[in-house]
Amino acid sequence: MLTNSQAPTLPVESSTFLPPTDAKARVSQFMQQLQDKITQKLEQLDGVGKFQQDSWERPEGGGGRSRIMREGAIFEQAGVGFSEVWGSHLPPSILTQRPDAEGHRWYATGTSLVLHPRNPYVPTVHLNYRYFEAGPVWWFGGGADLTPYYPFAEDAAHFHKTLKQACDKNHSQYYPTFKRWCDEYFYLKHRNETRGIGGLFFDYQDGRGELYRGPNPDEAAANYGKSVGTLPQRNWEQLFTFVNDCGNAFLPAYVPIVERRHGIEYGDRQRNFQLYRRGRYVEFNLVYDRGTIFGLQTNGRTESILMSLPPLVRWEYGYQPEANSPEAELYETFLKPQDWINWSPKSQDS
Amino acid sequence: MLTNSQAPTLPVESSTFLPPTDAKARVSQFMQQLQDKITQKLEQLDGVGKFQQDSWERPEGGGGRSRIMREGAIFEQAGVGFSEVWGSHLPPSILTQRPDAEGHRWYATGTSLVLHPRNPYVPTVHLNYRYFEAGPVWWFGGGADLTPYYPFAEDAAHFHKTLKQACDKNHSQYYPTFKRWCDEYFYLKHRNETRGIGGLFFDYQDGRGELYRGPNPDEAAANYGKSVGTLPQRNWEQLFTFVNDCGNAFLPAYVPIVERRHGIEYGDRQRNFQLYRRGRYVEFNLVYDRGTIFGLQTNGRTESILMSLPPLVRWEYGYQPEANSPEAELYETFLKPQDWINWSPKSQDS
Repeated sequence: MLTNSQAPTLPVESSTFLPPTDAKARVSQFMQQLQDKITQKLEQLDGVGKFQQDSWERPEGGGGRSRIMREGAIFEQAGVGFSEVWGSHLPPSILTQRPDAEGHRWYATGTSLVLHPRNPYVPTVHLNYRYFEAGPVWWFGGGADLTPYYPFAEDAAHFHKTLKQACDKNHSQYYPTFKRWCDEYFYLKHRNETRGIGGLFFDYQDGRGELYRGPNPDEAAANYGKSVGTLPQRNWEQLFTFVNDCGNAFLPAYVPIVERRHGIEYGDRQRNFQLYRRGRYVEFNLVYDRGTIFGLQTNGRTESILMSLPPLVRWEYGYQPEANSPEAELYETFLKPQDWINWSPKSQDS
Repeated sequence: MLTNSQAPTLPVESSTFLPPTDAKARVSQFMQQLQDKITQKLEQLDGVGKFQQDSWERPEGGGGRSRIMREGAIFEQAGVGFSEVWGSHLPPSILTQRPDAEGHRWYATGTSLVLHPRNPYVPTVHLNYRYFEAGPVWWFGGGADLTPYYPFAEDAAHFHKTLKQACDKNHSQYYPTFKRWCDEYFYLKHRNETRGIGGLFFDYQDGRGELYRGPNPDEAAANYGKSVGTLPQRNWEQLFTFVNDCGNAFLPAYVPIVERRHGIEYGDRQRNFQLYRRGRYVEFNLVYDRGTIFGLQTNGRTESILMSLPPLVRWEYGYQPEANSPEAELYETFLKPQDWINWSPKSQDS
């Protein structure tokens, strides 16, 4: 693995929001430990599949370790990556958002995962947490979101409540703000659908409390890059604690759902629908996803960036779910923003 | 179908390069006839599959007819679309290239197809021809390109020679210029591969003879949007004749290849490799393709735009072809720009 001392030291301008001198080393260590903890637990949960690791270096600076499990008992494919990379110029997609980073060397470290279970009753899940420094600016970003095929409201509520607890330890505004941001971000405009039932998403969190993209999906395009609200100011340590809490909430948010659902019997109908819906994951990641676009724009390691794509996918022209079917329920109830915190078993037949 | 008289009439500024007053009606008719001719021949060739047609209207103006064949004997999926659409503002991706179109209403008509054969020895093929008017500017664009899985040099040579004949009837510079443009355009930068063995591609042909994107793949990014060469000046009629010749060359370029290869026996190895390689088609269309991005940016009909995506696709982390295998030959010889015109059976073991 690359040692952190190989990464360039970056100056910062504002003393109020200075990161500590060991910021990069600490975040990078946290991201690696999060990868370790998650892959260890997933192997135990799966019982059969093992992660294979590829360590790689990036010619322009930095590297990472990609871990992939294939043909597990539960996970048809599970990719969990860690990376720590740097370079001389951030790509235009980020400079538009952070113009103060122009002309500065940049550093980024993060962990990301996408798990594709075999059983259509077990949802696909995504997590990514990342930290950037570039000249006078630094920020945290990331989140986690759940994409069910045959959904259970109880699972959606559990996932959201677990992430909300992690947020609430840090600030009561975080969950409502970042939950709405997630609904807005993981949205396929050309399908008029959310990717799944959401979770958390945030970006450009530098402690100053500006929100750079509106939490209202209807306003998203117009507000892109504009400050559209505020959160309380926070110093670097407080934000890092918040990201730690979010990262550590992943396993308790997801694992109980897998345990509850992986034994449900299914047939060709469920499998075919799962393969079809996986197509939406591909569409989102290749057309909209910031992480994917950043990776491809910065000559990242293609196999690691596209490790998120599903092992088998179907497209079907003009597919429409049958009325009153479980497939229709996914579209009608789950692929729209919902208040999962106040959902209770009584409020819905399930 | 929409009648052409519903489309707005657009003014033009330069009398030298004026389109005729019935330009839109004539091109639209040609595009519909091309769709008819191709779908008729493909049904005859397949013998089993039939095209289903969906006619659609676009709320902001215009419409089209999408035809799809599924589960044919030869074609696992074949999508052939015609559209004629208009609106008030072209998207930024085109205005960057054609700034004179800013502030003008636009009109576009075209035919496009992607055929996904079942047999891995039969190549996937793509065709698209299109015509735009927007205020003082108009242009033709399009092309056709072939994407084999288990390639035959003889097929690549036949495809290129047939398209070259159509070009040569119009101008000797067309084939070499548009063949190189195709190699450059259908290129997956993140994979360092061409999409297939190429064919023809051109865009923004308005008779003035400017080439707006370099034919040299190494210079592509830097030259994007710059004039990098010239072709002889042509009037509207001459360019329309050229596009007619290209469109009419499609069936003679592709059908003999299908006839030669669709009976070859194959097994799981070939099928798995085909599904894996289809992933590259998805990556190209969602990350790079102008037609797809234009459609999604202009609120086009999503099902028609994404009709190009394959019915079944695989991704596999870290796949590498075995040395000296047919799969390795695809990468080493065919997914790189080659001079297929001067290829002869003697110049290669095949």
